[in-house]
Amino acid sequence: MSLNVTELTEAESWEFLGLQEVGRLATAAASEPEIFPVNFATSGGRIFVRTAPGSKLAEVAVNAKVAFEADQLGPEIAYSVIVKGVAEILEHDDDLVDAEHTGLLTYQENEDSPKNVWLRITVQEISGRRFVRVG
Amino acid sequence: MSLNVTELTEAESWEFLGLQEVGRLATAAASEPEIFPVNFATSGGRIFVRTAPGSKLAEVAVNAKVAFEADQLGPEIAYSVIVKGVAEILEHDDDLVDAEHTGLLTYQENEDSPKNVWLRITVQEISGRRFVRVG
Repeated sequence: MSLNVTELTEAESWEFLGLQEVGRLATAAASEPEIFPVNFATSGGRIFVRTAPGSKLAEVAVNAKVAFEADQLGPEIAYSVIVKGVAEILEHDDDLVDAEHTGLLTYQENEDSPKNVWLRITVQEISGRRFVRVG
Repeated sequence: MSLNVTELTEAESWEFLGLQEVGRLATAAASEPEIFPVNFATSGGRIFVRTAPGSKLAEVAVNAKVAFEADQLGPEIAYSVIVKGVAEILEHDDDLVDAEHTGLLTYQENEDSPKNVWLRITVQEISGRRFVRVG
């Protein structure tokens, strides 16, 4: 058994992200690694994430370098896309309108704890790989 | 629609990890967040990961604080377990025997690039949550 590993193009990596709903956001505030599963949407070459006001994620992601990963792992074929970028919390009305237009809902959405802090990740690097089992 | 969120016990979190094969390891070397999808195994309250000699993961995970996440996300129920710990590269024969005994194979396993660097994560914190959609 061996494995074919293919690099995705940037366009293929974005296309893959556009089909996914859940990713994981990693931060390194004060050299302390943190990882958060998040619902996300992509729009205009950026990644949008919603979180709750005052959450740990909101705290560590302010103007922070982040890494982001989404994958799909089947028995024969797997995909993984990794992004490096900078997260910011959206505050301006125009930005919030753009964010709301992504239509992103979150897994944790409910009336008791509205998630209305938006993070936008400006992507600096994106890379993806496809793994196919052969033989 | 709302959502019931339940904290898993430590035992439940470990049980969940024991059923998963893939997780994501986050590091924060030089305040630079990195995230790696990895195959893993658990044994004796530790997490074992294999990687290739000289890989980026091997480089940044040497005696490093790490965060680790595994999840399972269904339409009605989702689970996510997050671990904080310290990764080390195993060098002693006894440790390597323990690691090999986990039986871990990796998705990328093939004859051309044997993955024979073992990372062991000593867990300092583990927490898990179950999300159930209701209503």
